Amino acid sequence: MMGLAGGSHLHILLALLVTSICTVRSIKLDVSGEAIASQLLHLATFTDDPNPAVTRIVFTENDLLARGYVKELMTAAGLTVREDPMGNIFGRWEGTDPNAGAVVSGSHADAIPLAGAYDGTLGVIGPIAAVAALRRAGYRPRAPIDVLMFTSEEPTRFGLGCIGSRGMAGELTAALLDEKLDVNGTSFKEASTAAGYGGSSHQEILDGTLIAKGGVAAFVELHIEQGPLLEAEGTQLGIVTAIAAPAALRVFFSGDGGHAGALLMPNRNDAGLAAAEVALAVEASVLETGAIDAVGTTGLFEIGPNTVNSVPREAKLEIDIRDIDATRRDAIVASVLQTVEEVAARRKVRHRVEMINQDAPATCSNQVIQAATEAAQELGASHKQMVSRAYHDSLFMARFAPTGMIFIPCRNGWSHRPDEFATPEDIERGVKALALTLAKLAGSADAAHSEL
Amino acid sequence: MMGLAGGSHLHILLALLVTSICTVRSIKLDVSGEAIASQLLHLATFTDDPNPAVTRIVFTENDLLARGYVKELMTAAGLTVREDPMGNIFGRWEGTDPNAGAVVSGSHADAIPLAGAYDGTLGVIGPIAAVAALRRAGYRPRAPIDVLMFTSEEPTRFGLGCIGSRGMAGELTAALLDEKLDVNGTSFKEASTAAGYGGSSHQEILDGTLIAKGGVAAFVELHIEQGPLLEAEGTQLGIVTAIAAPAALRVFFSGDGGHAGALLMPNRNDAGLAAAEVALAVEASVLETGAIDAVGTTGLFEIGPNTVNSVPREAKLEIDIRDIDATRRDAIVASVLQTVEEVAARRKVRHRVEMINQDAPATCSNQVIQAATEAAQELGASHKQMVSRAYHDSLFMARFAPTGMIFIPCRNGWSHRPDEFATPEDIERGVKALALTLAKLAGSADAAHSEL
Ligand SMILES: [Mn+2]
Ligand SMILES: [Mn+2]
Ligand SMILES: [Mn+2]
Ligand SMILES: [Mn+2]
Repeated sequence: MMGLAGGSHLHILLALLVTSICTVRSIKLDVSGEAIASQLLHLATFTDDPNPAVTRIVFTENDLLARGYVKELMTAAGLTVREDPMGNIFGRWEGTDPNAGAVVSGSHADAIPLAGAYDGTLGVIGPIAAVAALRRAGYRPRAPIDVLMFTSEEPTRFGLGCIGSRGMAGELTAALLDEKLDVNGTSFKEASTAAGYGGSSHQEILDGTLIAKGGVAAFVELHIEQGPLLEAEGTQLGIVTAIAAPAALRVFFSGDGGHAGALLMPNRNDAGLAAAEVALAVEASVLETGAIDAVGTTGLFEIGPNTVNSVPREAKLEIDIRDIDATRRDAIVASVLQTVEEVAARRKVRHRVEMINQDAPATCSNQVIQAATEAAQELGASHKQMVSRAYHDSLFMARFAPTGMIFIPCRNGWSHRPDEFATPEDIERGVKALALTLAKLAGSADAAHSEL
Repeated sequence: MMGLAGGSHLHILLALLVTSICTVRSIKLDVSGEAIASQLLHLATFTDDPNPAVTRIVFTENDLLARGYVKELMTAAGLTVREDPMGNIFGRWEGTDPNAGAVVSGSHADAIPLAGAYDGTLGVIGPIAAVAALRRAGYRPRAPIDVLMFTSEEPTRFGLGCIGSRGMAGELTAALLDEKLDVNGTSFKEASTAAGYGGSSHQEILDGTLIAKGGVAAFVELHIEQGPLLEAEGTQLGIVTAIAAPAALRVFFSGDGGHAGALLMPNRNDAGLAAAEVALAVEASVLETGAIDAVGTTGLFEIGPNTVNSVPREAKLEIDIRDIDATRRDAIVASVLQTVEEVAARRKVRHRVEMINQDAPATCSNQVIQAATEAAQELGASHKQMVSRAYHDSLFMARFAPTGMIFIPCRNGWSHRPDEFATPEDIERGVKALALTLAKLAGSADAAHSEL
């Protein structure tokens, strides 16, 4: 009995296991890269600058129009929409196991000034298409699957990126949000409330957004590479193993200004030239490491009064330094800070430095890496493991959930520019890989249904 | 008869000559530096930025309010106001000789962003006070005396300085004005017409503004030094012998931009860093000459998209280079242009250069220098000859009229900043010197009246 029963149980287990693998293998996905590309281009029409440029700042009219379109697509795909106080949008496909944590896939739809149509948006529209294809294929999830659009991945408006995912991860304090006003002095609370989200205080907004550890079973983000490697090597999919994190700092110089004709050179303390030296020092400090994974950028450079016949009295820089190696990145930051001190002393300008953020890099989950790898294999797609040098909401999702990312090639590695582009073929392959990955992570409700 | 008559005539001539000298010597001027300073501070209240800063851009609401106040003061001083199509404002005191060309004194009341209360305005309010004091003293001019407020000495709005005086001098073409649009794409014609000046074309406006050679018998501009020399040496008045002229150029760089995290350093062509190098090269090229009279400034520095997480794709610089030696100045310009080429090639960025202006320096008129020197001597004021390193409408008045300038000290040599300052005592002395200079240049109508 024991032996027989044992053998019988083992047989059933093996049968279930084989069925489960077959389930995923047998999903026939009907995904149109062309259709997704045209949805991306429609989303791109909600922009403050004329296409092909896309400028979409969180909680502006165009951001709200884009949100409306995303919710329409979610609803059309049979997803149940809900939104949290920060404006993160979830589209849920319920699973059969009421106790299972959700498998989540998402990205952002906000865009920095003069950006393009693919950064972030692929990771919002893509999983909606993936879920629709899974449903059409007869797959039914055991765990619920959420498609997620994050609020303000880009730092444009409030000077802080990944606001929505930081909020979910509990990596944001009300005190910090209180400080982060936009150029008009509007707070996140005011802007989110005006947009139909928000709450009576930043603390209340954060409390309503926080997701408990374990509340997300796995997170996957589909994204264009934003780098040149996949395209250059002809590799079809990138499976991300680690996400580099930026240190961002703001440097202020102030001198005494004066008349460009009358103030003699020895009597000047030109804040603009101090800033120029620091911008060049950022580049030099990065190049000095000799590490290809280290990058440094002075992306914002402003002087005042900024007129041709005035010696610059004020200068403001925003500097972004990234590496997958946190120690090396922080050494570059230290070197830049030392240059700031040295330049300020030599040029007799006053200076002030604000650290905007100095987040830790993230390591991706083996579970997600493995699911994505199997998905790529099943699609017969060439793939490689790689690191993400760009910042993503995945960085903060990784703080409380097993997280991974799937990259597709993009033209010339370009992003954050109007001619950012990914081919419909690469989009289609990426969405299929995402769909299979989600199915593997969420599990199948019913083996019978899946044998299509 | 001949001998006697000759002797008699000679006697009369000598008597007239002595009377004439006495006329000027005997003018007792009642000028209040405090009163003029408070008029300057009232004028300063017409500003786009809160005092002590002054921002007053040509043909804006605050510029029009300032114009109204200047015309009120002119009228109160008994001057007859007229305005030309460019918006230059003249306040005339008629002389007794209908054939005499006018003696003119004036300056500007527009102010660059975040400037102060004294630059230009002293040369508008000052001559009104000078004329009022001359009138109170019983002096009556032989030649007419005009107080003049020029339109747009500062280049802020249309990217070109001294528009009004260039127009009078015939140093401006309609084609050039056609090109000079403000940031909103508004032309000088549109802005001046909206302000109640203007005309149906730039040509018509220029035709109505031009002053024929000889139409101005002499021009004198009273101005704060905008440099530190008078104050440092304790000299009370500066008598200007030459006016340095700026060369101004605009440099554009454009690269390919990209994502600050994803775009690897070897693949970048950062327009902002190219611009930073050029700004530092302007300083280096000037210092290399070893000439204290040479100055160079990158007063405008803008990059795009100007966000922390984007590699700068666009950069725009406006550079101002001045010297009293035109050859040396142009050598600095050539050196900067060479750096632009070199940096563009090395950093693989596209570039474009526009020369905004490259005006010739001006030499002041001996007649005006002598009148001002005598005025200073009569006041018992210490004085020195000096060059003006700042740009002034005098530069263009000198193209068609005998021209000179009188400087008073200003605190720390500061100007183009909110804490620009001249003491009431220095203002009073400067206005008295201007009054006596104008009286000497215009001549006296009636010796009897002048012996007060
Ligand atoms: Mn982005
Ligand atoms: Mn993104
Ligand atoms: Mn000025
Ligand atoms: Mn001036």
